[in-house]
Amino acid sequence: MNKSLGVLLLFYLSVFCLHAEDGSRLWLRFQAVNAENLPGITSINGNPASMAVQEFQTAWTEISGKSLPVTSKLTDKTLVIGTAKNKNVRSFGLNAELDKVGREGYLIKTIQRRNQTVTLVVSESENGLLYGIFHLLRLVQTGQLTEQVDIAEKPLYDIRMLNHWDNLNGTVERGYAGYSIWKWDELPNHISPQYREYGRANASVGINGTVLNNVNATPQILTTEYLEKVKMIADELRPYHIKVYLSINFSSPAELGGLENSDPFNDDVQKWWRGKVNEIYRLIPDFGGFLVKANSEGLPGPQDYGRTHADGANMLADALNPHGGIVMWRAFVYHPTNEDRAKQACQEFMPLDGKFRDNVIVQVKNGPIDFQPREPFSPLFGAMKHTALMPELQITQEYLGFSNHLVFLATQWKEFFESDTYCNGKNSTVAKTTDGTIFSHSLSAIAGVANIGQDANWCGHHFAQANWYAFGRLAWNHELTADEIAEEWLRMTFTQQNDFIVPMTQMMLDSWKTAVNYMMPLGLHHIFAWDHHYGPEPWCDIPGARPDWLPKYYHNADEKGIGFDRTTNGSDAVLQYHPPLKDHFNDIGTCPENLLLWFHHVPWNHTMKNGRTLWNELCYRYDTGVQQVREFQKTWDKAESYIDGERFRHVQSRLKIQSRDAVWWKDACLLYFQTYSGKPIPYDIERPVHELNDLKKIKLDLRHHN
Amino acid sequence: MNKSLGVLLLFYLSVFCLHAEDGSRLWLRFQAVNAENLPGITSINGNPASMAVQEFQTAWTEISGKSLPVTSKLTDKTLVIGTAKNKNVRSFGLNAELDKVGREGYLIKTIQRRNQTVTLVVSESENGLLYGIFHLLRLVQTGQLTEQVDIAEKPLYDIRMLNHWDNLNGTVERGYAGYSIWKWDELPNHISPQYREYGRANASVGINGTVLNNVNATPQILTTEYLEKVKMIADELRPYHIKVYLSINFSSPAELGGLENSDPFNDDVQKWWRGKVNEIYRLIPDFGGFLVKANSEGLPGPQDYGRTHADGANMLADALNPHGGIVMWRAFVYHPTNEDRAKQACQEFMPLDGKFRDNVIVQVKNGPIDFQPREPFSPLFGAMKHTALMPELQITQEYLGFSNHLVFLATQWKEFFESDTYCNGKNSTVAKTTDGTIFSHSLSAIAGVANIGQDANWCGHHFAQANWYAFGRLAWNHELTADEIAEEWLRMTFTQQNDFIVPMTQMMLDSWKTAVNYMMPLGLHHIFAWDHHYGPEPWCDIPGARPDWLPKYYHNADEKGIGFDRTTNGSDAVLQYHPPLKDHFNDIGTCPENLLLWFHHVPWNHTMKNGRTLWNELCYRYDTGVQQVREFQKTWDKAESYIDGERFRHVQSRLKIQSRDAVWWKDACLLYFQTYSGKPIPYDIERPVHELNDLKKIKLDLRHHN
Repeated sequence: MNKSLGVLLLFYLSVFCLHAEDGSRLWLRFQAVNAENLPGITSINGNPASMAVQEFQTAWTEISGKSLPVTSKLTDKTLVIGTAKNKNVRSFGLNAELDKVGREGYLIKTIQRRNQTVTLVVSESENGLLYGIFHLLRLVQTGQLTEQVDIAEKPLYDIRMLNHWDNLNGTVERGYAGYSIWKWDELPNHISPQYREYGRANASVGINGTVLNNVNATPQILTTEYLEKVKMIADELRPYHIKVYLSINFSSPAELGGLENSDPFNDDVQKWWRGKVNEIYRLIPDFGGFLVKANSEGLPGPQDYGRTHADGANMLADALNPHGGIVMWRAFVYHPTNEDRAKQACQEFMPLDGKFRDNVIVQVKNGPIDFQPREPFSPLFGAMKHTALMPELQITQEYLGFSNHLVFLATQWKEFFESDTYCNGKNSTVAKTTDGTIFSHSLSAIAGVANIGQDANWCGHHFAQANWYAFGRLAWNHELTADEIAEEWLRMTFTQQNDFIVPMTQMMLDSWKTAVNYMMPLGLHHIFAWDHHYGPEPWCDIPGARPDWLPKYYHNADEKGIGFDRTTNGSDAVLQYHPPLKDHFNDIGTCPENLLLWFHHVPWNHTMKNGRTLWNELCYRYDTGVQQVREFQKTWDKAESYIDGERFRHVQSRLKIQSRDAVWWKDACLLYFQTYSGKPIPYDIERPVHELNDLKKIKLDLRHHN
Repeated sequence: MNKSLGVLLLFYLSVFCLHAEDGSRLWLRFQAVNAENLPGITSINGNPASMAVQEFQTAWTEISGKSLPVTSKLTDKTLVIGTAKNKNVRSFGLNAELDKVGREGYLIKTIQRRNQTVTLVVSESENGLLYGIFHLLRLVQTGQLTEQVDIAEKPLYDIRMLNHWDNLNGTVERGYAGYSIWKWDELPNHISPQYREYGRANASVGINGTVLNNVNATPQILTTEYLEKVKMIADELRPYHIKVYLSINFSSPAELGGLENSDPFNDDVQKWWRGKVNEIYRLIPDFGGFLVKANSEGLPGPQDYGRTHADGANMLADALNPHGGIVMWRAFVYHPTNEDRAKQACQEFMPLDGKFRDNVIVQVKNGPIDFQPREPFSPLFGAMKHTALMPELQITQEYLGFSNHLVFLATQWKEFFESDTYCNGKNSTVAKTTDGTIFSHSLSAIAGVANIGQDANWCGHHFAQANWYAFGRLAWNHELTADEIAEEWLRMTFTQQNDFIVPMTQMMLDSWKTAVNYMMPLGLHHIFAWDHHYGPEPWCDIPGARPDWLPKYYHNADEKGIGFDRTTNGSDAVLQYHPPLKDHFNDIGTCPENLLLWFHHVPWNHTMKNGRTLWNELCYRYDTGVQQVREFQKTWDKAESYIDGERFRHVQSRLKIQSRDAVWWKDACLLYFQTYSGKPIPYDIERPVHELNDLKKIKLDLRHHN
């Protein structure tokens, strides 16, 4: 290359790097903040080695273009960043306050002393300092910093973690943002800089743990070869206080150790696990523990040897206990029996209540089926009183349009957290049954199935970043509103301009219910295309397939009506809920209409609360979904002038897909269900533009993994 | 086959035949008429061999299930069907009235005489009787028959003909209803019963001529082998008074006769044509004549030898004249020169005005380009004063969505007929320049390019039948309103119920302007996909293609604006129109907005009469088109209970395609033109759901012929 060409190339590269709005910076866009938003700080007092200090310095430099000196003295406008052990911090006498926020909590305070204004970010731990600094920066980013700050924060769940359904071959089960960010082939020799970026992003929203590999785990992850790779990732995440966990395959002792079996009552098996755990902790002293999917969807488990989930979990717990490790045992179990799939987790786990070790926590999906667009909460919440339970939420949009559809999930999760289980009288919300308020256990935790991949924007859709963000924020504090989170994220990610923020916040808040409308309103569920779960296939019938993997099992449409009868006249699933909820659900007159077809097989002519027939209401819901997406398109297009063209066009393009998909869903479901209802689609509704037979022929070339 | 199976099969076949609502009966559905609508007739007086008598008897039997006796006496409630020569007719003393309606006209009269009520259908010719009978039956079918009838009808054009663009290999250029109905391979040995059905349908709307083969003619049609086939078709059509014409290839003498050339001044050539014409008339004594496309789009013609169109036409005319045959010489000529294509027909033909023989008529497409969704009338109309001109309309929807789109063309044709040429002062409509009102020539004629094929419903789309019907009706009487024709056709084709008729009539009347809206509003033209002309390709650029076959030639979009400047600042095409029209067109302030971009290159910011900018108006027009098609879908779906399911579903399905296509057109054109306008699509308009780049990749596997 000749020299001038090289210079030119360098010029273009630098311009590109400065201006590439590819979403890679997530919500950590300090460059975009106006310097006048910065607090009146002229120096930092703190340990220069502290990640919290470093992050603040980095952000300050990004915003102001200047670096902030680190001093040992307290002068006017000093920002003190220190743990309770710090001499200066001690001088402020905050012990009582710090006690209240616990190990990971923090205080942010503006203090006037001897004509000096000092800002404090203090915590008992380095983790807490980091969270505090990101909190302070969030205030700066969102324009919420006031002159006097007095904040005390503590997380409502102790363990706040991502579950990666990432396979060792680089694919991601239900991954829609490219291949896995864990580059197992390159490890342990090459360390991707993305690992640190990942840790930083997670820390910025308070996430403190991550399960690196798919719950459909292969024994291979526990080989020494792979553990040495895991160690490298753990080393990269440790500065951001992210603990590493692994999904394990219950047959590892037999398959990897060459043992005769993997029976948890077999001494050799127990010994093998102890040895393996010791090996892990030698490499990763702060290793978090195991996540286990056992006797579920074909995976091995203790039931293979006549043992219970508790037997299996406890064996692993005993091996991990000496090191402080934990077991997260998944309750996502169901068999192709005649029993309603929605009931089976309760049936298997309730008899085991109280039989798990203290360092075991049972991980329960939010709903009783499987991350459907809308489900009632799983009846295990509030039912298992003597066992720690942790909610598992799905951040990745397996059932919500992959990374093509804009669906902000905080509203869904808020509905879940605030669902009243009535387990301890009124106001026994799901959140309170899991965060220690109602039941006290040594563990409290929450997991979210990650939507992260190698795409430049991390999550495929720029707005899918909001779900990662929202999961972290709600895992820290499930009392935040979806509104607050949406607005925070928008301000940090795009712009401060209210003409942008207000309509976008509304769009995000409306987006989940919109998707439910055009996909499966009124409690319909699991009428997706086979296997990949993108698009509608309510007619799907695969010869020889498990009935409980087919839509017909769930929608039960016939000439009389539609829906799954889970009342006392049907599968009795309602009985798994506490009164009065079980009665509300059981009675078609009191069952919430947005779950009507979940709990009832409802006649087409059933009169809804608004006076419409069920059939007509179903039609209007689908149509409303379509119209809503079209409104999102308008809202977004109007925002063009507020943001960069690159992200504008990317989202615009995805919204077009979503808009077409919404029509596809509407036409497919209405035309198909119409073959049962035999009724016209109300004539004031936009007519279908597809033929049912054509839609039935659509077979997308999508794979289950990536 | 065993006997009971045979009986069963016969049963099902008969049921099927009775109830197959495949549209094959067109508007001639007498079965559907209630017997009480029948006039008070108990016998027929007329020649049993007359087709008019036979048709009335057939219809009567279909309606009432009873046959009507043919008697020689006049009694009460006799229907007299007879020509002026008929003794009974003469007794009514109608000569003066009959003179007024001419040879093909007819009278329908109810006459009270000696306590007898007699209905008369009389004419000077058998043709006229047949048209009169179909008129009477139409009154019955549409419920318009009154007790006292007094009708006098005469056609406004003498020759009312279809042009089939059917190739000898069975394909149809611009055919969207299956292969040609002319089964050349089977002829002359096998005679399809469809030929008579075709003749009957045409006679029922007054059509009296047909050109069997494509204007892009091969010499082969004039071989003795093919003429013998043509003779068989002519024999089948003669009972319905349809004359057969042929398109000829101007090089036939050289190519078929082995002559050195086909120069019209070559005696051998003239002789060859005379011989060929004589041969034709020996086979087909009432042969109509030749249709000629010469020196147009690569076809040979007199200009190949330095002769004029008149020289060529006159040579053929001289050969045909002794037999009463005529020449229809097409004015559809243009060359890839720098001259605006819209001007070229005038430039070539005006110098020849007055130089054509009396039995030559120049056939001129309605607009100066080529059957575009909307064009101004061709300036030849009203300009050639000494030459008979005949309009050529396109019934087949080459440029209007093939047989997928519901587009009722009577409104388009009415706009054409009623366009004021100002050639003879105000109110010199195109119709009056061609029907003998303003200019008197020995020939008056009109042609429509047929939309007929082998499809069971004849035209591909049930509503495309309405265009065949409307062409016939307007060729007979261009003063009929589109409204009348639509309602007539609907009542005859579907049902008498007003709840069906009223909204459907409106839909039909709105349909053409709707298609113009979603395809090319405001005078845009020829921005279709290459060659097959289905769908939008305003961006189309084929390397090496003739510029005047590319959309850019016509839309001229650039950063300043869009449209073809045909003003005196541009191509001067406006000067081909008479004043004050040329001035109206020339001035952007007076040019009709629906032709604005035909005549002007208009700035994007130009203020339209409604106050919108041109760009915004363009957006709204496209969007309105989409919304209108969606309304058509609603209108149609509401009609389900009024008609048979078979035709209901067929039309419903086509409307879905049209609805999707309208969105396709809108997105393609707005996204493409937006790359020039640089302006946002108004935000209250439904947003595009496609990516321009994806739309550019669409290449439909459609062929120019079928």
